[in-house]
Amino acid sequence: MKVLDGKKIAERLLAELAQKAAGASKRPRLGVVVVGDDPVIRSFIAQKKKAADAVDIDVRTYPSPADITTNELRRRLSEIVHEGKNTGIIIQLPLPPHINVQYILNAIPPEQDADVLSARAVGDFATGKSPIMPPVAGAIQTLLDEYEIQYRNLHTVVLGAGRLVGRPVALWLMQERAPVTVIGERAEDRAAIIRTADIVISGIGRPRFVTGDMIKDGAILIDAGSSESEGEVVGDMDESSVASKAAFLAPVPGGVGPLTVAILLKNLLTLAKP
Amino acid sequence: MKVLDGKKIAERLLAELAQKAAGASKRPRLGVVVVGDDPVIRSFIAQKKKAADAVDIDVRTYPSPADITTNELRRRLSEIVHEGKNTGIIIQLPLPPHINVQYILNAIPPEQDADVLSARAVGDFATGKSPIMPPVAGAIQTLLDEYEIQYRNLHTVVLGAGRLVGRPVALWLMQERAPVTVIGERAEDRAAIIRTADIVISGIGRPRFVTGDMIKDGAILIDAGSSESEGEVVGDMDESSVASKAAFLAPVPGGVGPLTVAILLKNLLTLAKP
Repeated sequence: MKVLDGKKIAERLLAELAQKAAGASKRPRLGVVVVGDDPVIRSFIAQKKKAADAVDIDVRTYPSPADITTNELRRRLSEIVHEGKNTGIIIQLPLPPHINVQYILNAIPPEQDADVLSARAVGDFATGKSPIMPPVAGAIQTLLDEYEIQYRNLHTVVLGAGRLVGRPVALWLMQERAPVTVIGERAEDRAAIIRTADIVISGIGRPRFVTGDMIKDGAILIDAGSSESEGEVVGDMDESSVASKAAFLAPVPGGVGPLTVAILLKNLLTLAKP
Repeated sequence: MKVLDGKKIAERLLAELAQKAAGASKRPRLGVVVVGDDPVIRSFIAQKKKAADAVDIDVRTYPSPADITTNELRRRLSEIVHEGKNTGIIIQLPLPPHINVQYILNAIPPEQDADVLSARAVGDFATGKSPIMPPVAGAIQTLLDEYEIQYRNLHTVVLGAGRLVGRPVALWLMQERAPVTVIGERAEDRAAIIRTADIVISGIGRPRFVTGDMIKDGAILIDAGSSESEGEVVGDMDESSVASKAAFLAPVPGGVGPLTVAILLKNLLTLAKP
């Protein structure tokens, strides 16, 4: 089994972006809206800051208390948009469960929506008119291209139908006219489908859920899920049991994650274009 | 094999819509933008007019010559929108190949987009915030519900990844968290996947493409494709060869088609709401 090294590709991509950013007339700025204070969220933001430093992109965080209401947060976001100081704005997910997430995401104008999560940005992407890709889909495409995996002719099965992984990956592969299956829930009942997959992309956040007996020989595994298990960040793929069957694995950490951050910053530079 | 009678359900739905429309303060109006003059397109419009008559919805067609440019058509559409006389506006598809279809569709404001085809309407639907469903997806949902087919627990395979069938059906089933596979092109290379499907929905427009040997015993077949063959409108499903294997078939004509028109008019009444 060959490991798809997202970290290495991300570093090269960030270096390319740094060159590109150096030619800009104005330093781009990423606004990050943060609700509450959680160690996992703090580590996500630290990763983005570190990558942004490498590209010389400014990061400004906008903190709000964990008990902010949806309406207050939407108002705060309108102010941030109205200020006009950011090239792009993202909402650090997940948000607390009492927040109406899509309503908040929709406050970001598409021309600043580097994460492609507002209804308008999703619509532009779904209809083939977006200048940028949803970061996870862009990261996976970059990985597959880099290792010359001809995914357009392969059958991809995506575990999870959420806004960050399943939906954007499905929309992307539909546009490529590549066969794609999305399994939303109860993936355990769908072992027969998963076993037919040439490529398995998982974004369900269930520790080591995909095991060797669930995949076919030579499968390409892309881990886009992460969860905490005994204080450690672990992916959806059970590395030890898939190792003898899979041909490729993009692991957690070091696979899709760092490339997702790099694509987010690539998107920011695209949005910065006059 | 039981035939799913879309025509009968559509008639009942239209009668219900007529009752609803009778209570409206103003007669709703559907604007239909038509480019060129083609017998197939004329028959599509006649079907919509007939159904609209049954509901007492006014239909106004806006004809343009077949050689109109994208920019001229977009300008024409802006005028029609600006007039403000229609409850909803649709573009009769297909458009001539020289037209930038999505650019034209995007000129329809989401609050008048009864076909859910503009980027903004697609984005609203994809993010779960649309008050209406894309007509083909709504028609298929209505059919399955009517015959009490528990599609949420079944694996649906969609042939075709286009804007009218594959994309909206995939987005709908993803939101339902139902397992769905979309096969964009070269469906013939994907026989192994099609044979695993509990439900096959086809929207590729290839006469009698799906044959008995391609499906599993007891499959539910939804024909959402149509093409012309020897002067006759035929569907994607080869009725004679699937008859002994399939459990259900929504045929062409009389299945998805009439219900699609009924859902379009249902959408119009929803958009008419104050």
